[in-house]
Amino acid sequence: MKLYDYWRSSAAFRVRIALNLKGLEAEREYIHLRRKDQRSDVYLGVNPQGLVPTLIDDNGTRVVQSMAIMEYLDETRPAIYPLMPRDAEDRARVRAVSQAIACDIHPLNNLRVLRLLGNELGLDEDARNEQWYKHWVNEGMEGVEALLNDGGAGQFCHGNTPTMADVCLVPQVYNAQRFGCDLSSFPTVMRINEACLDELAFRDALPENQPDKE
Amino acid sequence: MKLYDYWRSSAAFRVRIALNLKGLEAEREYIHLRRKDQRSDVYLGVNPQGLVPTLIDDNGTRVVQSMAIMEYLDETRPAIYPLMPRDAEDRARVRAVSQAIACDIHPLNNLRVLRLLGNELGLDEDARNEQWYKHWVNEGMEGVEALLNDGGAGQFCHGNTPTMADVCLVPQVYNAQRFGCDLSSFPTVMRINEACLDELAFRDALPENQPDKE
Repeated sequence: MKLYDYWRSSAAFRVRIALNLKGLEAEREYIHLRRKDQRSDVYLGVNPQGLVPTLIDDNGTRVVQSMAIMEYLDETRPAIYPLMPRDAEDRARVRAVSQAIACDIHPLNNLRVLRLLGNELGLDEDARNEQWYKHWVNEGMEGVEALLNDGGAGQFCHGNTPTMADVCLVPQVYNAQRFGCDLSSFPTVMRINEACLDELAFRDALPENQPDKE
Repeated sequence: MKLYDYWRSSAAFRVRIALNLKGLEAEREYIHLRRKDQRSDVYLGVNPQGLVPTLIDDNGTRVVQSMAIMEYLDETRPAIYPLMPRDAEDRARVRAVSQAIACDIHPLNNLRVLRLLGNELGLDEDARNEQWYKHWVNEGMEGVEALLNDGGAGQFCHGNTPTMADVCLVPQVYNAQRFGCDLSSFPTVMRINEACLDELAFRDALPENQPDKE
């Protein structure tokens, strides 16, 4: 198995956690996003969307998009550490929390968006951080906190073992903290984030613990 | 079954198509997004994230987030018109195309984002439309087109029957056209969009065919 990875990509961070939880080893190739390696012809041959991560399974199957990769890993390795519950209602809840992060927060605050706001639209760093980044973290985390408090959460986002929802939560909290966001209004999010970071599978996947860290 | 809906919400448009494809009837309650009805206490009790759509199943199960709703409908009604293929690799591909739209394009261009750019960050309409909206449609659709051309597409995004990927594609193309985006560089996207709109299930779900249209 092979993972195209970048230490600071939140989407790759998710897949690193998922692989760790499932005890799967993957060879790594690092795609340097700040140098725009993801737009090279070679990498576009691997991932036509030009984004990180990409997973190549042992049988050659290529999977892109972090949530699709996690569900694929869970469907093809159901016996090892489930990332998704069995019941349809529970699965819907885990997917909803995951998507509340991966669709409603992360896309607004990633590198390419901040670059466009700065380089093309002329927003200064203060406007980008205070009026944009923190706004979406606050609004998004308010929604996630409310979903979590609405039933179903245990020690983790769903019950007492980590699922795909926790795998999405931790990289988002990590990013928000890196940008200096105040997350004290989201006690359930923060409690679960701490519970996750007690687990080696999550800590080992942290950006600062990656070989390509700069 | 009940759907909390809004004619112009792309995410609700997706669920309307999915319900039509699966031949499922749902009572409707309309949540007027421009009037911010989604932030009312009553609706926050239904959907703590304050977003549309929300599905309430006959047994009372509540599901939020459009992709989670579609997978839930498919898991609980597997015998009626599958929205997802059976094989794990194919499922991953359908999810990846869906997420390339629902995570990488749609969140950047929805109403709340355009509002913030205009009201808080002072971007004029021309900057919002030309430098923001069209930029993300172009970059995003380039990725979707490349994914579709990389194998797996048939008459539809995956093979010759509509899946969740097509259900995500059509509302995104609809929005892009509404904002005057030139989509001629994406012939596969446009060919599939036309094939979908030949189907009553898609046409019936169009915003202009909804009772709450203004």
